[in-house]
Amino acid sequence: MELKPTKPLSGFIELLPAAQRFVDICATRMLGVLRTAGFSNLDLPAIERAEVLTDKDNWDEIETQMFLFQKGDTKMGLRYDGTVGLSRYVAGHLNDLTFPFRASQFSKRYRGERAQRGRYREFYQMDMDIMGINTLSTNYDAEIISVIQRTLNSVSDFIGENYVRVGSRPFWDALFDYLGLNSAQKKDVFILIDKRDKMGDQDFAEGLADTLKNKKLENEIKSVFINGYSNFVKKSDKLDMAINELNDFMKKLSDFGVKNADIDLSVTRGLAYYTGLVFEFKLSTYPELGTVAGGGRYANLSEKFSKTKIIGVGAAIGFSRIFVALIEAGKIDLSKFESPVVAAVLPMGDATVSFAMSVVNALRSKNIATVAYLDTEKKFKNQIEYADKIFAKYSLIIGEDEVNCQQITVKNMSTGDQKKMSLADTIKLLRTEQ
Amino acid sequence: MELKPTKPLSGFIELLPAAQRFVDICATRMLGVLRTAGFSNLDLPAIERAEVLTDKDNWDEIETQMFLFQKGDTKMGLRYDGTVGLSRYVAGHLNDLTFPFRASQFSKRYRGERAQRGRYREFYQMDMDIMGINTLSTNYDAEIISVIQRTLNSVSDFIGENYVRVGSRPFWDALFDYLGLNSAQKKDVFILIDKRDKMGDQDFAEGLADTLKNKKLENEIKSVFINGYSNFVKKSDKLDMAINELNDFMKKLSDFGVKNADIDLSVTRGLAYYTGLVFEFKLSTYPELGTVAGGGRYANLSEKFSKTKIIGVGAAIGFSRIFVALIEAGKIDLSKFESPVVAAVLPMGDATVSFAMSVVNALRSKNIATVAYLDTEKKFKNQIEYADKIFAKYSLIIGEDEVNCQQITVKNMSTGDQKKMSLADTIKLLRTEQ
Repeated sequence: MELKPTKPLSGFIELLPAAQRFVDICATRMLGVLRTAGFSNLDLPAIERAEVLTDKDNWDEIETQMFLFQKGDTKMGLRYDGTVGLSRYVAGHLNDLTFPFRASQFSKRYRGERAQRGRYREFYQMDMDIMGINTLSTNYDAEIISVIQRTLNSVSDFIGENYVRVGSRPFWDALFDYLGLNSAQKKDVFILIDKRDKMGDQDFAEGLADTLKNKKLENEIKSVFINGYSNFVKKSDKLDMAINELNDFMKKLSDFGVKNADIDLSVTRGLAYYTGLVFEFKLSTYPELGTVAGGGRYANLSEKFSKTKIIGVGAAIGFSRIFVALIEAGKIDLSKFESPVVAAVLPMGDATVSFAMSVVNALRSKNIATVAYLDTEKKFKNQIEYADKIFAKYSLIIGEDEVNCQQITVKNMSTGDQKKMSLADTIKLLRTEQ
Repeated sequence: MELKPTKPLSGFIELLPAAQRFVDICATRMLGVLRTAGFSNLDLPAIERAEVLTDKDNWDEIETQMFLFQKGDTKMGLRYDGTVGLSRYVAGHLNDLTFPFRASQFSKRYRGERAQRGRYREFYQMDMDIMGINTLSTNYDAEIISVIQRTLNSVSDFIGENYVRVGSRPFWDALFDYLGLNSAQKKDVFILIDKRDKMGDQDFAEGLADTLKNKKLENEIKSVFINGYSNFVKKSDKLDMAINELNDFMKKLSDFGVKNADIDLSVTRGLAYYTGLVFEFKLSTYPELGTVAGGGRYANLSEKFSKTKIIGVGAAIGFSRIFVALIEAGKIDLSKFESPVVAAVLPMGDATVSFAMSVVNALRSKNIATVAYLDTEKKFKNQIEYADKIFAKYSLIIGEDEVNCQQITVKNMSTGDQKKMSLADTIKLLRTEQ
C-alpha cells in the first residue's frame, strides 16, 4: 500500500512541541493584557455565508483569494479576517451588548491564494475592537494603540521594542480636494499610495504620471512622502482640520502612555473599512517583519447588516506573522521551551506502579507538571534516558525499596545528585521549580 | 440596499460575552490539568488533503459528511476529528519526538452534515493521546482515563460527578470466534452492537435475527447485555484472556485513583481506529448529554503514513457538546460571568482624560481589569449607567477636583459607598477584588 504524505499542505503551519509551547506562552501573555483591558473574548464561527464574506459584485475577484464551498444550496467560505464576522455579530446583538463594546478575538483566518514565503494560508490574528453606537470619541483610537503597545510589550523579551506610525485618511481626502482631482483620479491615486511601499519609488512616480499627467500635481503628492503635511498648512479648512486632528491625536497618545509614536502619512491601511485615523506597528529589532499590527477607525462598521450606525476603532496583531516568522528565522532560542515537565516518575517493575501513580496524582494535584514512564518492562537505562530526553528537571525513581519505606529517590537531572525523601518533602522541593 | 443576515449558519455556535467567558474559564482549567499531566499541546491545521481525511474507496460516502473543496489541483477539506491530523503529524516527526509521546489538542472540528439539535457543524473537542513505538503498556490506558477524570473533575462545580464505563474489543472478537461466526457475520453483528443504543432493543433483536438466523447464537449475544461476560468464562482461551485483561485493568484503574469505573461490554466506540480496550465517560447529573468523553487503544495509529508501528491510546472530550449544551439548556448561572472588569474609570470632561489614563495604565499594570469610559461629552449619568451595565465592581470617578489633588473618587457599585483616595490605596483595595 502506498503511504500517504506526512507534510501539511503548503502555507499551513504546524510546529514541534517546543515551538508550540513558545507560541502558546506568547499568546497567554498577550491575551492576559487584553483581558486586563476589559475586552470580551469572542469566538466566532470560522465559516460564514459567502454573501457575508463578500458582495455579489466582486465574487469572481474574491473567489481565488478565499476558501469557498457549497453545502446544499448554501455558498459559504472560511473567514479571511476577524472584522467581517464581528460586524455581523454586533449587528445581530445590538440589544445584548453594552456600548462602547470592547471585543477581542484570537482565531485562525484563511487566505486561499497560493502560499508565498512568509504568507500563510491559515494563520492566527489577534483582534481588538471598540465599538459605539452613533458616537465614539477618538480617545478610544488612542486607547486601542496603547493597548496594542502593552500587548506587544508583554512579549518584548522575544520581539524587542515596537513603534507606531499614524496616518490619516481625512488628510488625503482633503488634499485630493485641494488639488482638484476628479473622483477617478482620487481612487487611482489612493490605490497607488496604498501600494507605494511594495512598488518602490520609480513605479510609484510612473503610476502617478499615468494617472495625473500633471507634473505639478505629481510633485505635490510626492512631497508628502518627503515633508509630511508641511507644504499643506493653511491651504484649506479641510486640510487644516485633518492636520490639527492628527497633531491633537499625537499629544493624546502621549497622555495615554504610548511611546515611540510618530506621524507617517504614507500609512493608509488599504481600501476596506477605514475612514479616519489609521496606524501601523513595526518592530525596531525586526524591521524585516514589516507591519506586525495595524488598524484604524471605521465610520459604519455594520452598515451591511444593520441600519444602526456602529462606529468602531479596531486593530489586528499579526500573531503568526510575528511568532512563526521569528521561529522560522531561528531568532528564538527554543531550547528554553523544551521541557514540559518538572518530574518524570520512573517505576521499576509492575509491583511499584500503584505507589508510583499515587505519587504522580499527588504531584499533579499540586500543579507540578509530572509524567510517568509506564512501560515497566523496559530497562532502567531506557527510563532515565526518557527523563533526560524530555528535559525533566527531576527523576523520581520508585523501586521495591521505595515502595516498602514509602519514600522516593529524587534525582536532580542537571546535577545528578539524588536523595531518598518523603512525598511531602518531594512536593516541597518540586514546587519551587514551577 | 437589502441588509445581510446577522445569524450565523445553522449548526455554528456563537456565544454572548458572559457565556463565552464561562466556556473560556472551563477550557483554561481543563487545559491546566493536561499541562500538569505533561501533555504537549499541538495546534495542527484545520485543513488537510482529502486523501489524508479519507480513503479513495469511501469518497462518496464521506463527501456529505465533510466540508470538502478544491484549490487548483488539490482536493482538501476541514478535519472532522483530531486523530487524523495527529496520525499524519507523528508519522512525519518520528525523529523529532520523544516516545512515549503525550499530545493534547484543543481545536475546532467540522462535520458537514445538516445540523440537528445538539449536533454542531463546528465544535471544539479536547484530545489527549499517548503514543509509543512498537510497544505501549496498558498502564497508559489507565493513565489516560485517570487524566480525563481529573480534567472533568476540574469543572465539577459546573458539570457534577462523572463515571466511566470500560469495554473490550478483544472480548467481542473472542466471542465471535467462539460462536463460530463467519467474517461477514462478525462485521454485521459488530455494527449492530455499536448502534444498539440508538436503535433500541427490538430493532437490535431483529437485526441479529436477520444476520444470524440462529436463535441460540442470537441469545448468546443478547446475554452479554444482561449478564456481561459471565456466561463465557472458561469457554475458550481467547475469551478468558480478554476477560482477564479487562478485570486486571479495572484493578489498575483503582490503583490509578480512578473513581466510578465499571465494565460495560456494550461500549464499543464505533468502527474506526480502536483495537483494544475502549471507554466512555458520562455525567451523573446530566445523563441526557450522553457520552461526554471517550476513547481507547489503537494498534497502529499511523499505518497509512508510516511503516513504523505506532501504538496509541487516546481520547477526546466533547467540549462544545458539554458546555454549549449546558448553556443552551439553561443549566449554568451566567450572571456569575457577566463582569469582565473590576474598575470602570469615568473621566468627567476632556481635561481629566490624561490623569484618568495614567490611572488606567497603573491599574492594568497591576493586572486589575480596567476599562475607561472615554466619550467625555456624555453626561455623568450615562457614564455611571455604563459602569453598572458592565457589572464593574468599582467606578473610579475623576473630575477636576480629583485631578487637582491627584486623588480618585472610588465608588463601590454594590454598596454605593464612595470615598476619595490615592492611587496607591486604590490599587491596594482593588487588588483584593481580583
